[in-house]
Amino acid sequence: MNGMISQEIIKEIAIVSPSNILLLVIDGLGGLPDPGTGKTELETAHTPNLDKLATGGICGLTDPISPGITPGSAPGHLALFGYDPVGCNIGRGVLEAVGIDFELHSGDVAARGNFCTVDEKGLITDRRAGRISNRKCTELCQLLDGQLINGVSVFVRPVQEHRLVAVFRGDDLIPEVSDSDPQQTGMVPKVVTALRPEADRLADVANKFIAQARAKLAAHRSANMVLLRGFSDHPRFPTMGEIYKLKSAAIASYPMYRGLAQLVGMEVLKTGVTIEDEVKTLKQHYADYDFFFLHIKGADSAGEDGDFVRKVKVLKQIDSILPDLLGLKPEVVVVVGDHSTPASLKVHSWHPVPILLYSRYCRPDQVTEFSESACTFGGLGRLPATQVMPLAMANALKLTKFGA
Amino acid sequence: MNGMISQEIIKEIAIVSPSNILLLVIDGLGGLPDPGTGKTELETAHTPNLDKLATGGICGLTDPISPGITPGSAPGHLALFGYDPVGCNIGRGVLEAVGIDFELHSGDVAARGNFCTVDEKGLITDRRAGRISNRKCTELCQLLDGQLINGVSVFVRPVQEHRLVAVFRGDDLIPEVSDSDPQQTGMVPKVVTALRPEADRLADVANKFIAQARAKLAAHRSANMVLLRGFSDHPRFPTMGEIYKLKSAAIASYPMYRGLAQLVGMEVLKTGVTIEDEVKTLKQHYADYDFFFLHIKGADSAGEDGDFVRKVKVLKQIDSILPDLLGLKPEVVVVVGDHSTPASLKVHSWHPVPILLYSRYCRPDQVTEFSESACTFGGLGRLPATQVMPLAMANALKLTKFGA
Repeated sequence: MNGMISQEIIKEIAIVSPSNILLLVIDGLGGLPDPGTGKTELETAHTPNLDKLATGGICGLTDPISPGITPGSAPGHLALFGYDPVGCNIGRGVLEAVGIDFELHSGDVAARGNFCTVDEKGLITDRRAGRISNRKCTELCQLLDGQLINGVSVFVRPVQEHRLVAVFRGDDLIPEVSDSDPQQTGMVPKVVTALRPEADRLADVANKFIAQARAKLAAHRSANMVLLRGFSDHPRFPTMGEIYKLKSAAIASYPMYRGLAQLVGMEVLKTGVTIEDEVKTLKQHYADYDFFFLHIKGADSAGEDGDFVRKVKVLKQIDSILPDLLGLKPEVVVVVGDHSTPASLKVHSWHPVPILLYSRYCRPDQVTEFSESACTFGGLGRLPATQVMPLAMANALKLTKFGA
Repeated sequence: MNGMISQEIIKEIAIVSPSNILLLVIDGLGGLPDPGTGKTELETAHTPNLDKLATGGICGLTDPISPGITPGSAPGHLALFGYDPVGCNIGRGVLEAVGIDFELHSGDVAARGNFCTVDEKGLITDRRAGRISNRKCTELCQLLDGQLINGVSVFVRPVQEHRLVAVFRGDDLIPEVSDSDPQQTGMVPKVVTALRPEADRLADVANKFIAQARAKLAAHRSANMVLLRGFSDHPRFPTMGEIYKLKSAAIASYPMYRGLAQLVGMEVLKTGVTIEDEVKTLKQHYADYDFFFLHIKGADSAGEDGDFVRKVKVLKQIDSILPDLLGLKPEVVVVVGDHSTPASLKVHSWHPVPILLYSRYCRPDQVTEFSESACTFGGLGRLPATQVMPLAMANALKLTKFGA
């Protein structure tokens, strides 16, 4: 009721206007206080530029999904892009493919896979094949990649250690098929079966692929079989262009976030691995789009490593590039996180995430510091992350009024 | 979206972990300022222990249902237990049965009843039989109790004055039947009729019960008939165990709250009538459960009596037992009310209710006093009461992340 306005309504009132929106997502932004100082990572970091922007802007705290619920990266970002993070489910196979930068086409079906070992009877002895090296995984994937089975192309790509992705590309592939992975040792891999009649074709192709893989891997004692699970297809979300009439671009150095951006129809720009590389990419393409999703990963990684000091350092570094970003004079700047990752917890957490929105029309509040505690008193209050895009659009004068 | 995350999703992400949650519900906690001092009951009470807990914890204000809506005890508690207080309707007959500690079985149908008087033509002359005494009510109930009609056992229990509960226990009882109570005098009691064909059996048994009651009561001029209404069955909610994977226990000295706890699948512990009795019960059973609902009634009763001073006294008394509760070292403590009961209104009210959540991971705010005005600036903001359980679960590290 008080939450999300439907994408249908946004579609009706969205207009194209000559203004640019910059959505800066600091992954894992929110934190928890250090017991010694009583200050979070963000409160500890010296961030004069963010504080200045907070002073001129309006702040608040976002709930990525709902209070108490810890989001994964996918729902955390979908919510920020204005998609219902619970209703818009992305299959595990697709997420894995997206996570390695595989460019999925509409109609593709992706599955997660493991290299494993089986004994002479075909019983699984190690589901993870002793966590073979990345190099070995790449080598074996090349062996299986590029087959054409009943007119379906199968792409096989390494992920990490024993993990792989298999993508099936062809007509009429319906992803509702069962896993071949029995999730335990001492059993033979399961036959992939259609969970509805239309999925027979994919089940058949998947089983043939697995049989051929077993034959091709027979000589490789360290990993002589594959297990597949989580078959899923490219989700059919409306794109950012369809909903917001935006020409949107994503700048992210980690594949998972490029993939998520691609799933919602953003153009993914080539960029390097550092924050400076990302800023450079933004500058190069600034005239070509009216919406930029700029993703910075380091704060989350530091949080997950339990490294409070490194997280503080990343936040300081982000602060230092802010003048460069503002120099481009985007009409709307949003600085937010997809979730909190407190160093003390070493994982994503449920805590609400600071948000700062700056625009000429934002109605500034009295917050003068970008921090968890200051944002508690911000003019945006506490809001679901799904409301961020409507607010950014409004502040960019890209939404007309609803109703006469 | 900004409201309740579905219980289905909580079910998926809930895990068992070695931590205990204490949910302390101070019935009728919220209040209104005394015109003389400008302070509410809670602000008037000296509550150093609650204030200390608030300082280390995180505070806010809950809306039991939605702003402006005054909850009854049932929706007020259901919301705190994480059930949709509007969607989860408990029938009036069931509520009445639960309110007198009647242990309903699955499949039972309960109805509220009145003793009334009818004249020689059978027309109702007094719907409340002159509000007969509790003693008389008990005597008449015993007269009607324990009949077996068409294989259905009928239990009849006194409530207060002319009010009674009738519980029908037998196979295939469907509660969709009309009331016999026409809700006005000068009419004959209505025939109970099935509102759908499957309810014929219950309608038939109810009409036979009423006919027999009239015969048995004929000699009792002060109350010679019964009226029944609100036929309803044991609601089929998922239990707290099913949703949260909690082993949950309820400690409450009032039957209504024991009954509500039983309806959501908590184990109801035997306890005495005082707050001290309840604390003793908690200590005795602390190792046996990982969730405790501790209900304290006195503040609501004082509010309903319009007794500001007594409500202040009850709140002080609750404050004084807090060290005992904290001595058990629960990982998460939530102090909240099911609704407000300002002494100046003498009834439940719609005002939001202070909440205080304490845990190692709560991200403390700047609130240093547990009061309506201080909680307005709390880090939890203003939240629907249905979000309390997800927050308590998250802080107890009993929820894994949603989505990859």
